[in-house]
Amino acid sequence: MNSDSRYERGKLALAQIDGDAGQAVIDSLADIAPDLGRYVIEFGFGDIYSRPGLDLRSREVATIAALTAMGNARPQLKVHIKAGLNVGLSQHEIVETIMQMAVYAGFPAALNGISAAKEVFGETA
Amino acid sequence: MNSDSRYERGKLALAQIDGDAGQAVIDSLADIAPDLGRYVIEFGFGDIYSRPGLDLRSREVATIAALTAMGNARPQLKVHIKAGLNVGLSQHEIVETIMQMAVYAGFPAALNGISAAKEVFGETA
Amino acid sequence: MNSDSRYERGKLALAQIDGDAGQAVIDSLADIAPDLGRYVIEFGFGDIYSRPGLDLRSREVATIAALTAMGNARPQLKVHIKAGLNVGLSQHEIVETIMQMAVYAGFPAALNGISAAKEVFGETA
Amino acid sequence: MNSDSRYERGKLALAQIDGDAGQAVIDSLADIAPDLGRYVIEFGFGDIYSRPGLDLRSREVATIAALTAMGNARPQLKVHIKAGLNVGLSQHEIVETIMQMAVYAGFPAALNGISAAKEVFGETA
Amino acid sequence: MNSDSRYERGKLALAQIDGDAGQAVIDSLADIAPDLGRYVIEFGFGDIYSRPGLDLRSREVATIAALTAMGNARPQLKVHIKAGLNVGLSQHEIVETIMQMAVYAGFPAALNGISAAKEVFGETA
Amino acid sequence: MNSDSRYERGKLALAQIDGDAGQAVIDSLADIAPDLGRYVIEFGFGDIYSRPGLDLRSREVATIAALTAMGNARPQLKVHIKAGLNVGLSQHEIVETIMQMAVYAGFPAALNGISAAKEVFGETA
Repeated sequence: MNSDSRYERGKLALAQIDGDAGQAVIDSLADIAPDLGRYVIEFGFGDIYSRPGLDLRSREVATIAALTAMGNARPQLKVHIKAGLNVGLSQHEIVETIMQMAVYAGFPAALNGISAAKEVFGETA
Repeated sequence: MNSDSRYERGKLALAQIDGDAGQAVIDSLADIAPDLGRYVIEFGFGDIYSRPGLDLRSREVATIAALTAMGNARPQLKVHIKAGLNVGLSQHEIVETIMQMAVYAGFPAALNGISAAKEVFGETA
Repeated sequence: MNSDSRYERGKLALAQIDGDAGQAVIDSLADIAPDLGRYVIEFGFGDIYSRPGLDLRSREVATIAALTAMGNARPQLKVHIKAGLNVGLSQHEIVETIMQMAVYAGFPAALNGISAAKEVFGETA
Repeated sequence: MNSDSRYERGKLALAQIDGDAGQAVIDSLADIAPDLGRYVIEFGFGDIYSRPGLDLRSREVATIAALTAMGNARPQLKVHIKAGLNVGLSQHEIVETIMQMAVYAGFPAALNGISAAKEVFGETA
Repeated sequence: MNSDSRYERGKLALAQIDGDAGQAVIDSLADIAPDLGRYVIEFGFGDIYSRPGLDLRSREVATIAALTAMGNARPQLKVHIKAGLNVGLSQHEIVETIMQMAVYAGFPAALNGISAAKEVFGETA
Repeated sequence: MNSDSRYERGKLALAQIDGDAGQAVIDSLADIAPDLGRYVIEFGFGDIYSRPGLDLRSREVATIAALTAMGNARPQLKVHIKAGLNVGLSQHEIVETIMQMAVYAGFPAALNGISAAKEVFGETA
């Protein structure tokens, strides 16, 4: 498979999953590190999110959990909370996923994740 | 609800989800920090894993993703890879969840997660 | 012991230790994840901070040290710097605790911790 | 104050606090990075641990909490669990400090910290 | 070598490497933790950055990489992106260093690092 | 550029940089997650390490610094300490890079990095 098709496939997946928020990330890189934007599309979305074997809802549960637990990537967490809604997770399921991180990464991580969700839910209400 | 019922409910959830591996963790705490084992059961399993609103398969996807991304809790990651199998995730879905962490936490986290999965799959084969 | 008494005991401990800042955290969760606020009270304060065996001053030294070292939970660090003052730590002792983290988590963690302390001390002056 | 006195003061503090375990760390660096060992003594112990303003027991509570929460420095955590015993913390206080980290860094960090403490307590029994 | 000379040597190195941004960090500590500022100068710059055996360009590549990967120290990352320019790294080399972190610490770390670089390059343009 | 050429270019870069250790990582994935091995080659080495704009020595300084600072990826740190030697870094430069991390990620990270270097230098002596 050539690189063009990875890019095209990734671009479709990005639009489907992240919507406008994903494209905004790519656009913000255009004048400083455009290839990093290309890699997000090609590797992140063309390679990984396009894989069979795990449904998109589970993929977003995994990403929301990981970014909440890591606790150092709030902008990306917000993009993926939106993405979770886009692929069919309910607000309730997203809140449960974030709350569960209290067990594994501690309450501050969960509290800050909920704060991010509150911002996203407010914007998309 | 009183504490006894949280404990009883947590104990059932622990047995269902983590199987023997979960009880082994509790047992290892008995002589040094038994209350920490009690909190794992009461809060982790009696409170969090017993909540409605997110199915157990999604909960284990979230935990496997978070522990892989954090990269500093291999024993617990192995317990939850087993737990994922117990609640119905396929080996294939677990591998996909771990691989996806390469995007969010880097390749070393994903590689070390796969190494943990390989050990678990070998033991349970 | 039933859950009501854990909640009541936790609420008293929260008020004693964190003061208004703790209640503000709980309030901010009311419309999105009220059970997370309940767990903060029940588990964090009703179970852990209410335990005998370690005095409250030492508990806040431990928390300030941990949150400074983790470096990804500034709101919670500020709450616990206030809590440290509430339970009898001096500004000087809090500064020493944060400075010591330069040895274990590096200078950026210590510098950002001191910046959080400066904000809290300014607000409470 | 000249560097010699920082080194001498640090060496005394290291011996008092870490005992043989501290010197073993310094010795292990002698053939590859002796200056790193010197910095541990001069900065870590000659500068930081020798400061007035926070008692040694509190300093070890802070260090044990931070290393437990970070979760990626087990050898150093074990050295400082021993150091905690050396400066007068009881096993019980050390266990409480580590358990409390479940709230801030999650249960895996606390469980792995307890496992380190169990090894140290077993060796020093 | 006495402490005065460490301080003087560190002060020169700080001015050469970090420029005004470094001094601003020291100044911000003057009223709350002046000794932490002194340790930044003495240990960070007088001891470490003044060592032979690794050129300053490589030292700044190392620091920019580490702070990008850790993802919890944006103010310090910005100081060291400026420092990288001061010691002769091109904007292009700094962008490459940050992008490479996508492999080791994940895309969010790299994206947030690029965002910090964009701010610094805009200020220094 | 098609995917075959990314793979071929990555394979050459992997062999040049990581030598046998890199191939061993790929081989270990063959039966459980072969595509993760392919992504390491295609993205890590075919895309990133093959980029112009930053020399290979600087790229390995960046990677050794990041993995030392993160402190949760010892196997990968060892692979890249070997890689650093392969692309022309001296043992001395690698030790300096790792030591510098004491400033940014704390002494435990630096000490554990030196311990990894000692193992690698012993194996390659």
